[in-house]
Amino acid sequence: MSVQTTLEKPEEGAVLVYRDPEFQPRRSLSTWLIGRPLATADAPHQTIGKLIGLAVFASDALSSTAYATQEILVILAIAGTAAFGYAFPISIAIVALLAIVTISYEQTIHAYPNGGGAYIVSRDNLGEFPAQVAGAALLTDYILTVSVSIASGVAQLSSAFPDLMPYRVYIAIGMVGFIMLINLRGVKESGITFAIPTYFFLGMMLLTIIVGFVRLITGNLGMVIDPPELEHHATQAISLFLILHAFSSGTTALTGVEAISNGITAFKKPASRNAGITLIWMSLILGVLFLSITYLSGQIGAIPSESETVISQLVRTVYGGRNLLYLLTIAATTVILIMAANTAFADFPRLSALTAADGYLPRQLAFRGSRLVYSRGIGTLALMASILLVAFNASVTLLIPLYAIGVFLSFTLSQSGMAHRWWKSGRLKPGEEKKERGSVVAFDKNWKLKMAINGFGAVLTFIVMIVFAVTKFADGAWLVLVLLPILVFIFSSIHNHYKDLANKLSLENYDTPASIKRNRVIIPVSGVHRGSLQALNYARSLSCDVTAVHVSIDPADTEKLRAKWDNWGDGVRLVILDSPYRLLLEPLLDYIEQISRSCQPNELITIVVPQFVPRRNWHNLLHTQTAFWLRLALLFKKGIVITEVPYQIQ
Amino acid sequence: MSVQTTLEKPEEGAVLVYRDPEFQPRRSLSTWLIGRPLATADAPHQTIGKLIGLAVFASDALSSTAYATQEILVILAIAGTAAFGYAFPISIAIVALLAIVTISYEQTIHAYPNGGGAYIVSRDNLGEFPAQVAGAALLTDYILTVSVSIASGVAQLSSAFPDLMPYRVYIAIGMVGFIMLINLRGVKESGITFAIPTYFFLGMMLLTIIVGFVRLITGNLGMVIDPPELEHHATQAISLFLILHAFSSGTTALTGVEAISNGITAFKKPASRNAGITLIWMSLILGVLFLSITYLSGQIGAIPSESETVISQLVRTVYGGRNLLYLLTIAATTVILIMAANTAFADFPRLSALTAADGYLPRQLAFRGSRLVYSRGIGTLALMASILLVAFNASVTLLIPLYAIGVFLSFTLSQSGMAHRWWKSGRLKPGEEKKERGSVVAFDKNWKLKMAINGFGAVLTFIVMIVFAVTKFADGAWLVLVLLPILVFIFSSIHNHYKDLANKLSLENYDTPASIKRNRVIIPVSGVHRGSLQALNYARSLSCDVTAVHVSIDPADTEKLRAKWDNWGDGVRLVILDSPYRLLLEPLLDYIEQISRSCQPNELITIVVPQFVPRRNWHNLLHTQTAFWLRLALLFKKGIVITEVPYQIQ
Repeated sequence: MSVQTTLEKPEEGAVLVYRDPEFQPRRSLSTWLIGRPLATADAPHQTIGKLIGLAVFASDALSSTAYATQEILVILAIAGTAAFGYAFPISIAIVALLAIVTISYEQTIHAYPNGGGAYIVSRDNLGEFPAQVAGAALLTDYILTVSVSIASGVAQLSSAFPDLMPYRVYIAIGMVGFIMLINLRGVKESGITFAIPTYFFLGMMLLTIIVGFVRLITGNLGMVIDPPELEHHATQAISLFLILHAFSSGTTALTGVEAISNGITAFKKPASRNAGITLIWMSLILGVLFLSITYLSGQIGAIPSESETVISQLVRTVYGGRNLLYLLTIAATTVILIMAANTAFADFPRLSALTAADGYLPRQLAFRGSRLVYSRGIGTLALMASILLVAFNASVTLLIPLYAIGVFLSFTLSQSGMAHRWWKSGRLKPGEEKKERGSVVAFDKNWKLKMAINGFGAVLTFIVMIVFAVTKFADGAWLVLVLLPILVFIFSSIHNHYKDLANKLSLENYDTPASIKRNRVIIPVSGVHRGSLQALNYARSLSCDVTAVHVSIDPADTEKLRAKWDNWGDGVRLVILDSPYRLLLEPLLDYIEQISRSCQPNELITIVVPQFVPRRNWHNLLHTQTAFWLRLALLFKKGIVITEVPYQIQ
Repeated sequence: MSVQTTLEKPEEGAVLVYRDPEFQPRRSLSTWLIGRPLATADAPHQTIGKLIGLAVFASDALSSTAYATQEILVILAIAGTAAFGYAFPISIAIVALLAIVTISYEQTIHAYPNGGGAYIVSRDNLGEFPAQVAGAALLTDYILTVSVSIASGVAQLSSAFPDLMPYRVYIAIGMVGFIMLINLRGVKESGITFAIPTYFFLGMMLLTIIVGFVRLITGNLGMVIDPPELEHHATQAISLFLILHAFSSGTTALTGVEAISNGITAFKKPASRNAGITLIWMSLILGVLFLSITYLSGQIGAIPSESETVISQLVRTVYGGRNLLYLLTIAATTVILIMAANTAFADFPRLSALTAADGYLPRQLAFRGSRLVYSRGIGTLALMASILLVAFNASVTLLIPLYAIGVFLSFTLSQSGMAHRWWKSGRLKPGEEKKERGSVVAFDKNWKLKMAINGFGAVLTFIVMIVFAVTKFADGAWLVLVLLPILVFIFSSIHNHYKDLANKLSLENYDTPASIKRNRVIIPVSGVHRGSLQALNYARSLSCDVTAVHVSIDPADTEKLRAKWDNWGDGVRLVILDSPYRLLLEPLLDYIEQISRSCQPNELITIVVPQFVPRRNWHNLLHTQTAFWLRLALLFKKGIVITEVPYQIQ
């Protein structure tokens, strides 16, 4: 397309592509807050290596080590501190689960080199309904990632500075607002901004763990000094249910593992291979951190509490007090948690734009704002996360029961989708390819093994989800179980509307409508003045079939109008509608209705309404807004077009 | 005018007056509440005699005897109970003032046989600004009449039934709501409904006074038993200021005297004579009641109090307890106070309709509702009075300082107007008539005397107003002194707008505009579908100069649209606006702006916007409302007409 910068009149039927060379978007408060608008051509395209890739995608997964151990202990505390001994075995089970999920996703990464999030995999391999479920689960989860990460970040801060405790909801909301602004600006994700905090956190955590183990082995680690009081006193005996309950809480450590599978295209080539290696590294680090933290916390007798996090207790015990190393480690933990929330601010708008483009959410979510980001999605996420933080008082323990269901539901769907994909692959001949629902399935000779791995992963994550839902139902999981079907229902209602609309607008089997033979123009006049005469002039330019209509409430006024019409009406037919009940709109509608009943096909009625545009807005209060009500009343009638002819009173 | 009931097509230039014989206004909740709509022809026309006339117009004036005495005592109480002796002399002064005002109004009634309220008299004789002041004063006063009368009615009730005391604000609001509904129904004011309560009150009051005087003369009246406690203890010595202050409070007895001068046309012929005689009777009765009540209250040592009214103390002392006669008298007093409020519900809407018709208030106030009453005025009055009742806790004593300023201001203006009228009359030759500002001034041989009487009345009421404003300034009169200028300012702002509008719309020096030579039609299209093709079809019926415009955000979408346009665009020129910043509206506005700059006089631009009308209202959330924003942005541009072509998705 050649773009022109002058508006010379093209001939009939020509196509002109025009760009105003002087056009500049307006500046306003928002340009000051989020920066000047960016042109579409400015969109960045860069790829990253494994080291930076790990930093970019790992913050969500790694940051969950900041709260997973504590949440296991909170549940075990119900059976007293003696039950804390079960924490380490439980985390071993969780790390085993992590291993299986990692292998499963490894396969997804290689099968979907263009990015295979749960939504896409479900949509391509399982169909519309599972895709909607996966979309709902993921969107809920992203919101919870923000809420939980920020809540945990604030908890770390208030562990170091207990004076902040009373303000934690405000601090949390402030952080969400800050991340929102950053994302509305649309920072160019120059890997380095991710690498510094992530590797800082990793370094501080590994140092803490190494020092901890050294002191443990040398026998001078000791117990936590001044531990917080146990909030839940022993109220029940240890039971299988309780252990499964604690296990469920710990599975939040797995949240964020799927991140890399969404972002394969960001990696340098060979993208799938690099992404896959990064995933394995990430899982290894996650497993080591999580197991070490849980083990050391058990050794020092850390107590789960809202007033001081387990991480804070561990770190100050390892370093022997609230010294500089302690503060650096806590700072690193807070920052990685904020980074995790920031990840959701990239994922949620992208996924909502994707589902919106598929017609499950309002299309507006798919439009990119002035800074090339999906501003509406960012705003929605910030709002939802803030509501949750206020409602749950920024408490991680209260938020956790809502969290992992969606994660495991999307794991299950994604891996079922992959298993189904391998099965389809096995039905092809070697070398054959088949296109289905927009994705290409190719024959794979190892399809049986791969199907088994993904299938096993699907079954396992499904079981974990059920365990989670049952054990945490009363704690708040019910809310998500109610919310998800509602979300899916909303998705499909929206989808039905768009599909229906597309059908109704489709040009298939559509004949070009015969040109309009007759346009009956009706012009309601309340008086004869410049405004109505201007409208009359316009009406006459539209058609030669013009009728002026006056609703008569006061006979004296009507008589005056008739006399004036004789002078100024220029021979146009005038119909006076007698209104014995002094109604203005109803007789007019009644008249239009009667005229439209006698309309032939290819005949139209145009109502030309003279409208004052007063100088000041409040002046509108001094006029009956007939045009507005008329439009509202006639909107649903076929074959009627309303035209307002504005008369500006400068 | 002959009204037809068929819609046979009249020829060009013909006038058809049409009434749909089957048209019936819709029924709704409001028809159930206020009754079926009434046709204009149903408006009642009846006249009344002096006896009924007194009943209809006297309730406002007579009912003020229910609180005037008490309000004098409340002020005197500041100097202790010893000061109560000044109450009777003060009321004699007030009755003297009443006599002068009565004589003044007597002259107005004869000079204005068609009704001469303060607003009309000021408008005709003093000009626009004094008329606006009088209008503002009267409207404020009508609101206060409702508030004060209802507050006093509730005080009477709670004197008889002290248990109601805590609920008095609720009872007051309930009463206002009830009177509002009655007035929205628009009861036909069959004199009898007024006569019964008015004469019942008069009878009970006269009986009380006669029994009171008989028991006083025979020496067995005695003092109030168990009087309420004096709320304000003696805090200052008696002074001229205090006496003037008490006098001001007592002048509320004069409120309502002007009522008859507004309603002369309601009287049987000779209307002015009958109305005049009725006015004199009313003032006589008012004077007698007021003097008697004040005198007897002094004799029995009545104490002004929020918990029991002076009337209640007087009546139970006269009848020797809270017996049947006591209850009947209190009931009569309560009812007459409600009737007084009801009077304001007739006057306020009528005056606001009159001022609205003169262009000082929004025109909508001049439209009569389905029951032939000025519904909007009735609603406004009820709302304002309720706000005052809530704000002042339904206390008569707190409301009184706001009350009488407006009354005396309108007295002053009305009588100044009359004095000026006599002066103009004196400048004419005998038998001569002169039309000025819509009213006819005739020569009157007694013009000097009449001018002196009205002039004296004007000066006197002006002095009283000043006294009132000064003595009651701190009690609340300042509020009215602030409010009145604001109201006048609003009136003149509204008036200026309407005058300006009328000038701008006036056909004087107006040439019929040359017919439109060229109508450039621009049709923005976001996609090629049935909706946009229907709009295109319509656009082509308007003009042969049609340009379709597409704002290109995504080059791939634009390419598809171009291809489709080749098939379906029917040779219509397509302009593609490149939008590098992904803005939708701004490039379109920029383009329209550029086209309109090249427009000749007599050339117009019509923007034809295809618009979906979805089946459900919430579906609108799923679409960008381009048409709406476009209209908003283009409303103030000359020579641009926007037409929405609705495409209904059934």
